Amino acid sequence: MGGTSGIVHLVKFKPISVEKISIIKIGGNIIDNEVHLASFLSAYAAVEGKKILIHGGGKLATKMAADLNIPQQMVAGRRITDAATLKIVTMVYAGYINKNIVAALQSKNVNALGICGADANIIKAHKRLHATTDYGFVGDIDAVDVTKIVQLLDAGLSLVVAPITHDSAGQLLNTNADTMAQAIATAITTVYEVSLVYSFEKKGVLSDINNNESVISVIHPENYSALKASGQVNEGMIPKLDNAFEALEKGVTRVVIGDALEIDQLIAGKAGTTIQKN
Amino acid sequence: MGGTSGIVHLVKFKPISVEKISIIKIGGNIIDNEVHLASFLSAYAAVEGKKILIHGGGKLATKMAADLNIPQQMVAGRRITDAATLKIVTMVYAGYINKNIVAALQSKNVNALGICGADANIIKAHKRLHATTDYGFVGDIDAVDVTKIVQLLDAGLSLVVAPITHDSAGQLLNTNADTMAQAIATAITTVYEVSLVYSFEKKGVLSDINNNESVISVIHPENYSALKASGQVNEGMIPKLDNAFEALEKGVTRVVIGDALEIDQLIAGKAGTTIQKN
Repeated sequence: MGGTSGIVHLVKFKPISVEKISIIKIGGNIIDNEVHLASFLSAYAAVEGKKILIHGGGKLATKMAADLNIPQQMVAGRRITDAATLKIVTMVYAGYINKNIVAALQSKNVNALGICGADANIIKAHKRLHATTDYGFVGDIDAVDVTKIVQLLDAGLSLVVAPITHDSAGQLLNTNADTMAQAIATAITTVYEVSLVYSFEKKGVLSDINNNESVISVIHPENYSALKASGQVNEGMIPKLDNAFEALEKGVTRVVIGDALEIDQLIAGKAGTTIQKN
Repeated sequence: MGGTSGIVHLVKFKPISVEKISIIKIGGNIIDNEVHLASFLSAYAAVEGKKILIHGGGKLATKMAADLNIPQQMVAGRRITDAATLKIVTMVYAGYINKNIVAALQSKNVNALGICGADANIIKAHKRLHATTDYGFVGDIDAVDVTKIVQLLDAGLSLVVAPITHDSAGQLLNTNADTMAQAIATAITTVYEVSLVYSFEKKGVLSDINNNESVISVIHPENYSALKASGQVNEGMIPKLDNAFEALEKGVTRVVIGDALEIDQLIAGKAGTTIQKN
């Protein structure tokens, strides 16, 4: 654009042709409830354009471990994924939950393809290394195969991703679903304009955990510090918000946290909590 | 080709450019044994060209049902798939077994994509209707999406298929793995020259069930009748052989039954039992 001074300002535009995609994480509390899950999947099916769904496993894996009398080890509030627990999460997340979601979406004319990170080598990870704690078969993500994701999407498939990765040496690894959603969202910013939605059973990030109407509509770095300092933002929400800010830093266009039954509203920015860089 | 009589005979050739593909069913007894499964997967990884693996579940689903205290109903030697059993086979087949095979193949540089029939809408089925017996959530196959299979194979992916289908109305269905292998093999004869291999723990169809060296090298309709009449062919083998003959009738080029650890030899026709139309 030429200014009156005769100096040409170079303005960096996103090319107009960049296609939009929605990456939607669905939280465990929705998955645990058949009626809520069905409502969510109807809302999800109606989302226009390319989309990827990442699901957690909620309490179903914990329940299965109890049914099989497999004790769950927790360290500092985190589950240790021993071999027996890895088998359970692989069965429950990548089998039971993933395939039931796929079948439900097929009935709603969404051509879903259910995968985990090992499938098509989509997400490579390594077993978590930690100085003092062995978290067991937990994977930290190393690489996302953007080319394969684009090929599958271009084949008209809507990916449904279970939070299991692999280490390229034959080992499956349990991986946090929020982290997987963010890793996929940021990796594909090289190809798409990406909206990342963390959806769950609440209307957004709440200033009063007991009041579902107390949605904080926007969180940016300044009020985030204050919200953390005052304890208004729940401790469990902090990793999700840190993930959200990192996604924005890495090129994701929009990050929204909110009600799984209002997906369309969240993507349109009309509901939930929008995370902003500044 | 013009004959001397001047009459032109129309001869139907397969185009020379038809690509070969191997459809390999792996039986339950191999999957139950970690060492044998690892050996099989090494042999499978070495198979050249396009390939699809269909796996059963062996005794792992039965064991899981026992661990969960879920009684298994059998009618005339066939398991009834009630809702609890469907959940187990979905977890064990499409989750645990499928994803462990995929991760193992990735470690051997095979870019595997683990699916069930609901994924990408590859295999549609309907709940089995039977005059006197309700088999529960058992699926009989209606349609195979050849276009999607070709797209996935052309994307460089090697499909690993768990024997679960869907009814397009959101219901998953338990489906016989031999039947799935045959349905996929016959459907894709419109595109490929197809070899179908039923592999398991024995060296082929045996004339003496207690002697693993008594392999019947060729079975064709004539000796099949005699082998059945004499009781030489084991009753459990008859559905597999009927499946095999049907595959040949429907355009599959080669059907071989044999040792899962000799896959290359089976495909080359140097081991196992070859089924022939005449």
